[in-house]
Amino acid sequence: VATRSLFLGVMADPAIEAQLAPLRAAVKESGDLVRDLKAKGAPKIEVDKAVVELKARKRKLEETEIALAPKEASFDRLKLEDLLKRRFFYDQSFAIYGGVTGLYDFGPMGCGLKQNMLSEWRKHFILKERMLEVECSSLTPEPVLKASGHVDRFIDWMVKDLKNGECFRADHLIKNTAEKMQADPKVPAETKEQLTDVLAQLEGFDDKDMHKVITTFNMKSPITGNDLSEPVDFNLMFGTQIGPTGDFKAFLRPETAQGIFVNFKRLLEFNQGRLPFAAAQIGLGFRNEISPRQGLIRVREFTMCEIEHFVDPADKSFLKFAKVADLKLNLFSACDQMDGKPAKPMAIGEAVQKGIVANETLGYYMARCQEFLVKVGVDPLRTRFRQHLSNEMAHYAQDCWDAEILTSYGWIECVGNADRACYDLQQHHKATNVKLVAEKKLSEPRVVNFVQAAPNMAVIGKTYKKEAKKIQVALEQLSESEVEELEKQIENGIYKLKLDDSEVELKKEMINVKRGEKRVHVEEVTPSVIEPSYGIGRIMYAVFEHSFRQREGDEQRTYLALPALVAPIKCSILPISANERLNPIIEAVEEQLETFDLACKVDDSAGSIGKRYARTDEIGIPFGVTVDFESEEKPWTVTVRHAESCEQIRVKVDEVGMIINSLVKGYLSWSAAKEKYPVFESKNEEK
Amino acid sequence: VATRSLFLGVMADPAIEAQLAPLRAAVKESGDLVRDLKAKGAPKIEVDKAVVELKARKRKLEETEIALAPKEASFDRLKLEDLLKRRFFYDQSFAIYGGVTGLYDFGPMGCGLKQNMLSEWRKHFILKERMLEVECSSLTPEPVLKASGHVDRFIDWMVKDLKNGECFRADHLIKNTAEKMQADPKVPAETKEQLTDVLAQLEGFDDKDMHKVITTFNMKSPITGNDLSEPVDFNLMFGTQIGPTGDFKAFLRPETAQGIFVNFKRLLEFNQGRLPFAAAQIGLGFRNEISPRQGLIRVREFTMCEIEHFVDPADKSFLKFAKVADLKLNLFSACDQMDGKPAKPMAIGEAVQKGIVANETLGYYMARCQEFLVKVGVDPLRTRFRQHLSNEMAHYAQDCWDAEILTSYGWIECVGNADRACYDLQQHHKATNVKLVAEKKLSEPRVVNFVQAAPNMAVIGKTYKKEAKKIQVALEQLSESEVEELEKQIENGIYKLKLDDSEVELKKEMINVKRGEKRVHVEEVTPSVIEPSYGIGRIMYAVFEHSFRQREGDEQRTYLALPALVAPIKCSILPISANERLNPIIEAVEEQLETFDLACKVDDSAGSIGKRYARTDEIGIPFGVTVDFESEEKPWTVTVRHAESCEQIRVKVDEVGMIINSLVKGYLSWSAAKEKYPVFESKNEEK
Repeated sequence: VATRSLFLGVMADPAIEAQLAPLRAAVKESGDLVRDLKAKGAPKIEVDKAVVELKARKRKLEETEIALAPKEASFDRLKLEDLLKRRFFYDQSFAIYGGVTGLYDFGPMGCGLKQNMLSEWRKHFILKERMLEVECSSLTPEPVLKASGHVDRFIDWMVKDLKNGECFRADHLIKNTAEKMQADPKVPAETKEQLTDVLAQLEGFDDKDMHKVITTFNMKSPITGNDLSEPVDFNLMFGTQIGPTGDFKAFLRPETAQGIFVNFKRLLEFNQGRLPFAAAQIGLGFRNEISPRQGLIRVREFTMCEIEHFVDPADKSFLKFAKVADLKLNLFSACDQMDGKPAKPMAIGEAVQKGIVANETLGYYMARCQEFLVKVGVDPLRTRFRQHLSNEMAHYAQDCWDAEILTSYGWIECVGNADRACYDLQQHHKATNVKLVAEKKLSEPRVVNFVQAAPNMAVIGKTYKKEAKKIQVALEQLSESEVEELEKQIENGIYKLKLDDSEVELKKEMINVKRGEKRVHVEEVTPSVIEPSYGIGRIMYAVFEHSFRQREGDEQRTYLALPALVAPIKCSILPISANERLNPIIEAVEEQLETFDLACKVDDSAGSIGKRYARTDEIGIPFGVTVDFESEEKPWTVTVRHAESCEQIRVKVDEVGMIINSLVKGYLSWSAAKEKYPVFESKNEEK
Repeated sequence: VATRSLFLGVMADPAIEAQLAPLRAAVKESGDLVRDLKAKGAPKIEVDKAVVELKARKRKLEETEIALAPKEASFDRLKLEDLLKRRFFYDQSFAIYGGVTGLYDFGPMGCGLKQNMLSEWRKHFILKERMLEVECSSLTPEPVLKASGHVDRFIDWMVKDLKNGECFRADHLIKNTAEKMQADPKVPAETKEQLTDVLAQLEGFDDKDMHKVITTFNMKSPITGNDLSEPVDFNLMFGTQIGPTGDFKAFLRPETAQGIFVNFKRLLEFNQGRLPFAAAQIGLGFRNEISPRQGLIRVREFTMCEIEHFVDPADKSFLKFAKVADLKLNLFSACDQMDGKPAKPMAIGEAVQKGIVANETLGYYMARCQEFLVKVGVDPLRTRFRQHLSNEMAHYAQDCWDAEILTSYGWIECVGNADRACYDLQQHHKATNVKLVAEKKLSEPRVVNFVQAAPNMAVIGKTYKKEAKKIQVALEQLSESEVEELEKQIENGIYKLKLDDSEVELKKEMINVKRGEKRVHVEEVTPSVIEPSYGIGRIMYAVFEHSFRQREGDEQRTYLALPALVAPIKCSILPISANERLNPIIEAVEEQLETFDLACKVDDSAGSIGKRYARTDEIGIPFGVTVDFESEEKPWTVTVRHAESCEQIRVKVDEVGMIINSLVKGYLSWSAAKEKYPVFESKNEEK
């Protein structure tokens, strides 16, 4: 199909490649400069400037690639959106109250598709890899998100209309205003050129840069024309209060990952103390976007599926890696991006071996990611794994590959696959003083020096009585450096020891600091974390675009070719007439499908059978059973229609549940079914 | 099993019945008084007072019933809680940060059980009844919850420590203080008697009553002894802001139902305009409890499953009602409650026929509710359906039966089954001016008078230009009474017509009020709503209690006898030794189970096989495969152990997936399996 070849089409056509060549060269020039500056150890500000230019050139290359795509690949988004809205796959929340941007309600078909995708995700990852699934609270106390960095760094810059207080995301406002000015014949050419520079560098701008642009080009509120404030930071988390006192600040979680990290100890224990293990969570995340657009791509409340795979930082090999090593992914490495080269297919085994992908564990999850996306209906030719440039990654991350899917909105980041090292566990350890480590058995015991503060219980007991036991425990838990600190302080008088919720003063005669050697058999390690993180709404939207079809010769007859595995309804049941004689046969078919837990829909409404076929095709029902007057002859038979091809076969009612179950589960292909059962020629399709 | 008979035990034992008789008589006396006052049309305040007394007597009866339960039925909650915490079924959220009351994280076992319960719920209701599933936003704008009544009425009364600001739920504080005073020998007998009255009537108290009690008995903060404020109302919804401006107030939804109501039009259209239909939603609800206690019973964030069944208010019959009519439920009718009688088993068909349950639709959902509860592991003997007394029901509700489950916390409301009439749709209609109605075909056309305000477009157009079209639409939407109002006002000068966000003044020459007759074929009805609403966390907790067992002769060896259908892990795999020769057999068993999507867990840790059995029993794994040295003989065999009975059979590895799948799905009972396959006598159980 033409639309499916868009990605490869662009990359393969020599005429298009010729047009792209200078753009590729420009990217490479920039990329080389960045490499050069880094190698020289140039100041950060210079490197950053070069990176901004590199990104601007990359973006130009990508936009041109998409613009040059063959015409037949163009896609009618309005038609798709009409279908999705009309058949209530999803729609804006609270529409009868005027609606809220960035909030969507899923109707029966959207909800069904989503549930089936989640259930497939659960099978594909949690069941298959025996992950430890958790479900944690969305409400999250402030200190947790302070430790994770979200309170300080999860922000966007916004500007306010100085008269009416209306808010705009600063970078979006600059982009939209600049683009409008460039299209305005009254704006002088010189200004337009300056604006081109602004647009190219915008992504790297901080608040001061943006303020300068706004004042230099005299940008105003697009709605009122009023003056704008300086950019101010806006935290994207929804804040609230837990309990009635008003002093327990909390947020709705912006991601599910933190819930897993704060449960690390319990999960490690559940896994009997062993590494590696993976925990997973499916749940809601919330982000208070300043002014969300783009439908399901940017929303304020969304379902995520996240995995945290905890692994020994010294050994990130993966036991089952060999099983996926030959799978080819479209890899868009940082290096190729800097060279202006396109993404290229490569076996994941080769990529890990060559050091392009950092380690087996990360590579394994990338391969499984691709398998999942294809299963639920994403076109693999419109999927690529893009490696973060070193400047894009969080400072603690070691490697990161986003699964990006090509839609009419461009390449959309749908899954992040990141090696986050041990950052999160360390942060929570720092904040809580609870050790989040695993014990690793040493290959042979090691002799280490130790220092400890041994209590003189007789003296302590006399002074602190009931507290003595607690003091003993607290002393045992002191780290070596704390013991050395104690030793220093106690020499000069007293040492204040913290207990759970009090403090005691210890004097020299209460403590003996002991030094010695001991044999240790284990060492403590803070595990590294590999984190695959799936945005289900974005993947769903990509599935809608990739499965959207128009019947050849009848452009108005649109439908969704959803994979049967995730289609919300597996089979329609259409009686050819309203005659009651057909009812017992309809009921028998329903019972057959129920036995296999197959969701079905009886459409006995008025309208020709062809119209009803079209209506069931629209909502992505892959198979349809038609009950006609031939059905009544014993043994009862019905026809089974394959929506994608409009072909039909005739089968016994007794077998119809088993046959459709086999077709849905993929045990039986449609072409095999056509050989096994008599083909039925219908004259009822509407063309 | 002794514990299972608690409910019937109390009700059947004549010695216990004798002790309960005077309490029952006291309830009846009170109930008769209420009936009498109502019949006489006594003032509301008098009726309310009598109802408070009735409820107090009912509570005393119920507490005595539970207290008199046979000793063997007593239940060690601490042991269960220890198991649930130790094996991480669930635990307090953010514990390493000090924890938050009322928030819980589900670990792998809790999460698995919950997911399986939800998946069963989806099959049992949504798939089976072809309900329209939706998934709506949790973030909800204030006007929606203003219309539903939550902004004004979803409150608790709290009192504050006047010095440190600490908050207490007023009724809980009074109850706890009063009980403490009653146990205090220094408090005079007269005061204690007064406190008994207070406790009996507490449920009916408003803020002024509670304030009076607090001052009369000089109640203070239980923590600091400080004085307390007057009761102030506290809304139980979590508030937040959508977007950056700070003027878009929103709440986290306290229930999922409103999301369905605001989507009514889209859902009706999806159902091709026909009634009845049911929509369902599974999702989070949030309630900012003042000071939650009681574990999973009272939490701040919870999963609900709600159904809204929309039906013609004139016809609440249910097509498939006959299928459940013979099912017996323990019904605790309002009438029996007022007579001091116990709940009694009755076929739901009989209950509807006798008018005890209001209609077939409500009755059908009650029957299906019981079937669901039993499926997931609730003991039907400890389940009852309690009808709301008329004073307990929301003013708009027509009938309401709570499924209550007996736990160590007493009878806990786990499911509400309510006929809410057309209240919610009407409220949203009023708030939005969007008609939320269905069209009902009349059996024969009817001639009706009509009055309408026809616009004189020429005149209107001249004055209002672009607004003219909007005015025409607004005039069409006026109700008959509004047209008559218009007619009256316009006679005397002008009529102010509201448009979307403005108002126009209409003069007499702009309007012709027309009257006439027309034939109508349909009438508009606002559907009635039957709402079954499931609190999944509470049901889960009841399942834990009802499936908790101790091995006879070894009280320390506790386990969960979860139904295989919902058990998080269906099968354990235990190699009898760490010898590597067994690995290929273990892998073959894993593959067998994977084929059937059966979650399994290999426990190859150190420890005797008996200890490992005990460990897998604890987390409710219903079946276990043991790989021993006999397994190696060709064809490979393994033993399958039934956790509840500790019995084992020996089966071929080739068949083990199929056999365990049949056992889990219930196609094969354990006793049938024992006849079909050789029983294996194990010496490995630890007693």
